[in-house]
Formats: sequence, C-alpha cells, structure tokens
Amino acid sequence: MMQSSPIPTDSNRPFLTWQRITDWAQEHYRCRSFSKDERIPARPGLLYLVQRGTVRLVGSAELKYAESKPKSRPRNRKLDQAFLGFVGAGQPFELIAQSPFSLQAYSHADDTTILWMYWHDLDNWPHFRREVLDAFRYQHQRKLLWLSILGQRRTIDRLLGFLTLLIEEHGEYYTSGDREDGFKGYRLPWSLTHSQIGSAIGTTRVTVTRLMGKLRQQNLIYTQDDNFICIPVDPETQNQTSDLTAESGFEEEE
Amino acid sequence: MMQSSPIPTDSNRPFLTWQRITDWAQEHYRCRSFSKDERIPARPGLLYLVQRGTVRLVGSAELKYAESKPKSRPRNRKLDQAFLGFVGAGQPFELIAQSPFSLQAYSHADDTTILWMYWHDLDNWPHFRREVLDAFRYQHQRKLLWLSILGQRRTIDRLLGFLTLLIEEHGEYYTSGDREDGFKGYRLPWSLTHSQIGSAIGTTRVTVTRLMGKLRQQNLIYTQDDNFICIPVDPETQNQTSDLTAESGFEEEE
Repeated sequence: MMQSSPIPTDSNRPFLTWQRITDWAQEHYRCRSFSKDERIPARPGLLYLVQRGTVRLVGSAELKYAESKPKSRPRNRKLDQAFLGFVGAGQPFELIAQSPFSLQAYSHADDTTILWMYWHDLDNWPHFRREVLDAFRYQHQRKLLWLSILGQRRTIDRLLGFLTLLIEEHGEYYTSGDREDGFKGYRLPWSLTHSQIGSAIGTTRVTVTRLMGKLRQQNLIYTQDDNFICIPVDPETQNQTSDLTAESGFEEEE
Repeated sequence: MMQSSPIPTDSNRPFLTWQRITDWAQEHYRCRSFSKDERIPARPGLLYLVQRGTVRLVGSAELKYAESKPKSRPRNRKLDQAFLGFVGAGQPFELIAQSPFSLQAYSHADDTTILWMYWHDLDNWPHFRREVLDAFRYQHQRKLLWLSILGQRRTIDRLLGFLTLLIEEHGEYYTSGDREDGFKGYRLPWSLTHSQIGSAIGTTRVTVTRLMGKLRQQNLIYTQDDNFICIPVDPETQNQTSDLTAESGFEEEE
C-alpha cells in the first residue's frame, strides 16, 4: 500500500531542482498562499505546483436539461459540483475549461501555497519537466481506477472503493494507542465532509452518512475523532507485485 | 467542438517519427493485431500505441463485501467491469494493475493493431516521448471531466454528460441526407452497447435503454441505424475560448 508518488513531497525531495524552482517562483512573484476553502483562480494553459498544503479539485458542468415531460423544450441547467480528488504537496496540477464542462481548484488546508509557471518555463529544467509529465501520467492511472469504482451500481461499493483509493494514495500509517485491540491502519490526513464524498460518488449526504455507519459496523472503516477516515490494515492482503520477465510485451494467454 | 488530440492519427500525422516507429516495431516484432472484443494482454510498465483501430479500456475491482447483515463477516467480492473509455489510432495507453483494482484493454474494432515498447525505447525519440506524455496529460484532463459527470446524482445527467464527453472527444461530423430537416451533428464512430454504457455510469442496461429513449424524444441525442449515437449541433453553442493576457498566473478575482 501507499506507493510513493513520482514527485516526492517537499520534505523528502532528493533533488535540488525543487529548491531552485521555489526560489525562482518567489523571485518572479509566481507564488501565492490561500486559506482553507479559498478558490485558487487557476487559468487554463498554465502549470501549477503545490508547494505546501493540499488542493481539492472540483468539477462542474452545464447540460441541457432533460425535462420529465417528453415534449417540453430542453433548457440549460447547472449540475452539482463534484469532488475530483486531492493534489498534495510537491504535486502538479492544471485546469482546462471547456464548455460545457469546467474544473476548479480550492485550497483544502490553511496556508496552502501554490506556484505557477508557463509550460515553456520548464525548458530551463528538462529533468523536472519529465517528472511533472510522469506525475500527470500517474494521476491519470489513478483516475482510471477511480472511474472503474464509479461505474459500480451499488452505492456502498462506490463508497468503499472511493475511500480505499483515496487512502491508498494519500493515507498515512496510523495506530490508536498501544492497546492490542487498538486500530492499526492508514488514515486520510485531511477531513472530507459527507456532502463532498456524496458529490464524488453520485449520492446524497444523507446516504453517505448511513452507509459510513454500515461500513464502520463491519470494521471496514474507522473514523478518528469523527473527522479522519481510516482503513484497517488487512494481514491477508499482500501486494501482488508483477514479476514478469518474458520477452514479449504481451502477457501469456490465459 | 472536436478539438484535435495531441497525437494526430496515422492518416494526418505530419511527422516522419510515426512511420519510423511503426517500421521499428515491425522489425522488432513489437506489433500485433487483434479481432473485435479480443483482450489485449498488456503488461504493467510497458507503453502501448494504437496503430490502427480502437481500444476499449475496462476496469475491475475486488472489494470487501459489505453484507446487509450488520455483524456478518465481510468477504471479498468481484465487482462489475466498468467501461473507462476509448483509445483511438495514434494514441498511447498503459495499464497498471494494483490490487484490489485492475485495468484491462480490449480491441473494440476488427484488425486493431497495437505496438508496444519499453519506456526507455523512447530515449531514441525524445520528441515523440514528449508527445506521448502530453497525450497522457490530455487524457487525464478528459478523465477529470468524466469524473465530474459521474458525480451527478441523476442518472439521466450522468448519461447525457457521458455521451457528450465521448462524442466531443471522438465524434465525427455527420448529416443524415440532404433534407433541410435532416440531422446535423457529431457521431460516435463506434457502437457501444447499453450494457457497456450502464457499466460506465453506474446503472443497468434496462435503465440506459429507457433513458436513451427519453433523450431521443427531446432531440438531445439521435441514433443512426440503432447503433451509432449522435449529438446534434447546437447553433446557440459557441466555443468559449479563453483569451486572457493578464500578467498574473491567476485569474482576476470574481
């Protein structure tokens, strides 16, 4: 679990590049801090990096409204905002805006600091450019997994899958005290409201609250201080590392 | 609509690189053809390129099953496969497999031809490497939009948003005959079953069929030959091109 992200966070970053980039950003007035839940007014075409804190991505859309009466004229209707994930410290993000769909970024923690640059600024740091692109490649793979969770029909499957994915990516190891029967597992280090969770998995706040209770009863999740969601370590689970060394680029047929 | 993808398809590709890569793949036995709905046994860690045809990405997962009885012991349960999108000719894809989630690729058209390579093979073509990474960047942005559609509570919103996104990305201009009142719009060039659509948006085949009828009645979609889904051109819709030239990397505050 918890595979390391391709762009290490500030604290454990082995490269000097990151320090040089934050220095450069400061010199060129390319950084800014935001308080919790403040909107980050990011523009399409630019690249943003989270220096400190966490960013919450959100999507919204306007669709022609399919009315319940068959022959009535469709109208435009604003859809609900949807929670699309976190971008942690050291990670890049970008937002395109394409009607009728658009993406927004919000600071998810106080004192979240964001750097921005043009893509061509990265010509000065070709190695870092590659790291940024690899980070997007990784984020893309995570979103594919997320999509396969949201394709599930049962809301409880979407909920448990969604929490598992988030904690697999962002979770920190956590134990509750020294007791033998205490909780051992991974914890999402930021709080998420039930309404935000609902907006990600296509359901209501009320349903999320009810199903979270059900998952808790079965010890599939644990909530610390009513705020931080945890998933227990499962001793049966083993990482299935792929160790294929075949010459072919395709697996053996099944 | 129909913004061009960052990696042009075979037919209109302006670079000689693509020809050199396909020649190289053939020489090194790095390409293979698949018939419709055949599984492409792609391995994690390698890069795949669609030379001809179309690939369908599918996700599956195994989750601890939350039983309806509160105190019963959770068991592992295989979830439904979910449709995650198409990869067209000229586009790259890669699959990671991470328990409990996994991705698979299937040929979606007869005679779909796939090349594969190691990432370090791209050291020979640094420009092409960048194109591939930009393509993943683009695909990632599309998946964020897709996620915001799947966060919608109303199934009909998810359905219409999903079709709009797919056709916006892959659609071809289409008119039905010369008649004044004929259909004008964009058509998805591959068929999708209602069951595949349901697996993408978290609902059943039966519900998709019913809601497609509703969207058709309101002229929000059109189906050619019962097989190819089309979305009409809306004369009111204008591309909102962003034309900001401000010095700041952040939008003006609202």
